Amino acid sequence: MYPSPINKLISLFSRFPTVGPRTATRFAFYCLKTDSKEIDELISALKEVKESINLCEMCFRSIEKEKKLCNICLSGQRDKETLCIVEKEADLVSIENTGEYNGLYFVLGGTVSPLRKEDFKKVRAKELKERIKKGVKEAILATNQTTEGEATALFITRLLKELDIKTTRLGRGLSTGSELEYADEETLSSALKGRR
Amino acid sequence: MYPSPINKLISLFSRFPTVGPRTATRFAFYCLKTDSKEIDELISALKEVKESINLCEMCFRSIEKEKKLCNICLSGQRDKETLCIVEKEADLVSIENTGEYNGLYFVLGGTVSPLRKEDFKKVRAKELKERIKKGVKEAILATNQTTEGEATALFITRLLKELDIKTTRLGRGLSTGSELEYADEETLSSALKGRR
Repeated sequence: MYPSPINKLISLFSRFPTVGPRTATRFAFYCLKTDSKEIDELISALKEVKESINLCEMCFRSIEKEKKLCNICLSGQRDKETLCIVEKEADLVSIENTGEYNGLYFVLGGTVSPLRKEDFKKVRAKELKERIKKGVKEAILATNQTTEGEATALFITRLLKELDIKTTRLGRGLSTGSELEYADEETLSSALKGRR
Repeated sequence: MYPSPINKLISLFSRFPTVGPRTATRFAFYCLKTDSKEIDELISALKEVKESINLCEMCFRSIEKEKKLCNICLSGQRDKETLCIVEKEADLVSIENTGEYNGLYFVLGGTVSPLRKEDFKKVRAKELKERIKKGVKEAILATNQTTEGEATALFITRLLKELDIKTTRLGRGLSTGSELEYADEETLSSALKGRR
């Protein structure tokens, strides 16, 4: 129903995470209607992200191309023996924003699924092992409390078994503001086990 | 927390409809991780949409630049005396997909809000008036059943009052598959009034 350049844009936006065909259509018309200047900005930002971003050689966070290590890995004030392993960079930012963690990080770059074997290649398993060998004493598995997150934690735990380090997971229990009445059994049972 | 090209991209994606900062962050990392080829495709599609799309001179749908009128307005088989007025092009496509409508369309290009006076400039009011004068006998107001849609319908009704045409609105009532028990009062009262 739409001219082909619009259809093309809709199909490309449909590949974005969480975006279905309806939202993709809204995005395409937003781009059509919005100021050309803003679209030019978007185009330059896309180019720049692809051209000028590097990954930190230690933790695999994204950094400016001219750098080799990120500011956290370079910092002299962090506990270099503790490594927090996260699925993606946004999780790292969430933990960093609590101000409660003073160790270093490692970004896996994905999750493994117990059903799809090829997923194992999606996470930086080899790189993680190499990284741990460089003086890490405790690895905190900070994967999500989802099926994929759990499977990833299991996979990483097995991977690190042969290395002589302490492996912990994030505490589980009730979220702040949640009511007992509405908590699922799994959460409530975790909260009971993890009582202090 | 992120390198500046990523922050820039997040802020641009945040302006997209329905997108908040978290989703914008996911989009930015999707663009960072995805194949460069796909991002190049996205960049060309964005450019093409801005460069090669025109609006139909009669209904204001988007069309390829080399055309002046869209296929619906050009068609010899449509009822040229009935004009269906929609907020945006996606609404036109929804109506067209029912296969029940054989008249022509007019895309307002926005909605008016009763609170913000400057919104009146966002819809093609003058163009609509000109269009109606060219042989339209019935105008169907197919705006959304939202506050803005209702305000727009009211605005258009007033605008068309002085022209001697029949103005109708889309039938209101229960959606297919909906249950009486869960219908809101407004819908139920519309369904009662519109009983056949």
